[in-house]
Amino acid sequence: MTYCLALKLRDGLVFASDSRTTAGVDYISTYRKMHVFQPSSDRLLVVLTSGNLATTQEVLDNLRRDLAATEPTENLGTAAYVFEAARYVGQVLCTVVQHYASTLGGSVADLRATLIVGGQIRGQPPEIYLVYPEGNYVAATWETPYLQLGEFKYGKPILSRLAAGDLSLDDAARLALISFDAAMKSNLSVGPPLELAIYPQDAMEFSHQLALDADSALLRSVCRRWNEKLTQAFHALPKFDWERAGPAK
Amino acid sequence: MTYCLALKLRDGLVFASDSRTTAGVDYISTYRKMHVFQPSSDRLLVVLTSGNLATTQEVLDNLRRDLAATEPTENLGTAAYVFEAARYVGQVLCTVVQHYASTLGGSVADLRATLIVGGQIRGQPPEIYLVYPEGNYVAATWETPYLQLGEFKYGKPILSRLAAGDLSLDDAARLALISFDAAMKSNLSVGPPLELAIYPQDAMEFSHQLALDADSALLRSVCRRWNEKLTQAFHALPKFDWERAGPAK
Repeated sequence: MTYCLALKLRDGLVFASDSRTTAGVDYISTYRKMHVFQPSSDRLLVVLTSGNLATTQEVLDNLRRDLAATEPTENLGTAAYVFEAARYVGQVLCTVVQHYASTLGGSVADLRATLIVGGQIRGQPPEIYLVYPEGNYVAATWETPYLQLGEFKYGKPILSRLAAGDLSLDDAARLALISFDAAMKSNLSVGPPLELAIYPQDAMEFSHQLALDADSALLRSVCRRWNEKLTQAFHALPKFDWERAGPAK
Repeated sequence: MTYCLALKLRDGLVFASDSRTTAGVDYISTYRKMHVFQPSSDRLLVVLTSGNLATTQEVLDNLRRDLAATEPTENLGTAAYVFEAARYVGQVLCTVVQHYASTLGGSVADLRATLIVGGQIRGQPPEIYLVYPEGNYVAATWETPYLQLGEFKYGKPILSRLAAGDLSLDDAARLALISFDAAMKSNLSVGPPLELAIYPQDAMEFSHQLALDADSALLRSVCRRWNEKLTQAFHALPKFDWERAGPAK
């Protein structure tokens, strides 16, 4: 599996992804899932990938080939809006899946992949989109400021509580780290290095881009502090009536 | 869906379950999932249910019928160990599923149910078992002191952090409440009333048994405090190097 997360804030975007790919518990590999495209200085686009690795690699190969094409071709450089980039990536994804699905007699379940496409094209606001295996997409909004891929459930409760469009970019990046901490603690199929990228609106470049190994001092200090504070919070919860009344049972 | 949780502690057992049953978003009902059997004063047994409601109801009907049988019949009263009760419940479950599977031409996916069977029989230690649709079971242990059913992922990260065999029963009950809070915040298919039962070893009865509505003062105070403390904990996380160095970006 995989866990990827993108947040859309008032001040920009935050992207995060793990690097674990599994094909059974005896075949665990490291593949990065955050792919950055900057075909010209007026845009920065990020593709986060989950699902079938063969599918996502071929999608990325196609995106790069289209960018290098000498004849006029729709590509990540020609999109005028981020949603056009998302739609184009969705078409590429759908074409790859359909190609092999026809070989496999219509069964596409194992070939499926889901992507997040986000970034900014100058003159337009930053956006993030979840691109489905069918090629269509949904956007993050002010009310729903984050999108997730893959093994998303473990890391969702803390996002449900704290993710908000008016978080600072740094706070949103910290929130991403503790959401990943929950996912990594609960599921072996999510693992480091974690990639984390912070994009301030209109910058057309990341302000910070990190790859955090399991022994990263930053990751360890954030996760250790979080664990300590959660444990303290747990012990500060209100007592039951019967505990106040007498000795603990 | 459903969320059920059982914890096995040094001092006894804690059981918790939600009450929401869904058959599509336009058919949401309330069915309790915690079923208590005390056929004689030497035992207290609890069955928590998840999965197909028709299957789990028929299983429970069979358990009650076997207890009322006039001729000698294996039932929850005849088991000498809690694992025998779990194996018997598993056999009943498997028989119910197989009966309808044969009607449906071998397709059993929609009929499946998974159960937790736990409690104590005098002279034996308290135990909890997860009973699979195939009828077999696994036990909780000192290293893995909890078992979950249904929509378990949202509520698991906090258990991974804090569940331990040496928690007090009251602390374990509080931990169950915040695990349910995470599940209810993240997934509409988990909903109140929550049932919570605390069983002290060798008591042969619950010390406390609660049904908590959404507007329960206890549930609201625990969830509100937890949310406040988590928010404080988040804001106390270590800053990134670049935040310490200068103004926030």
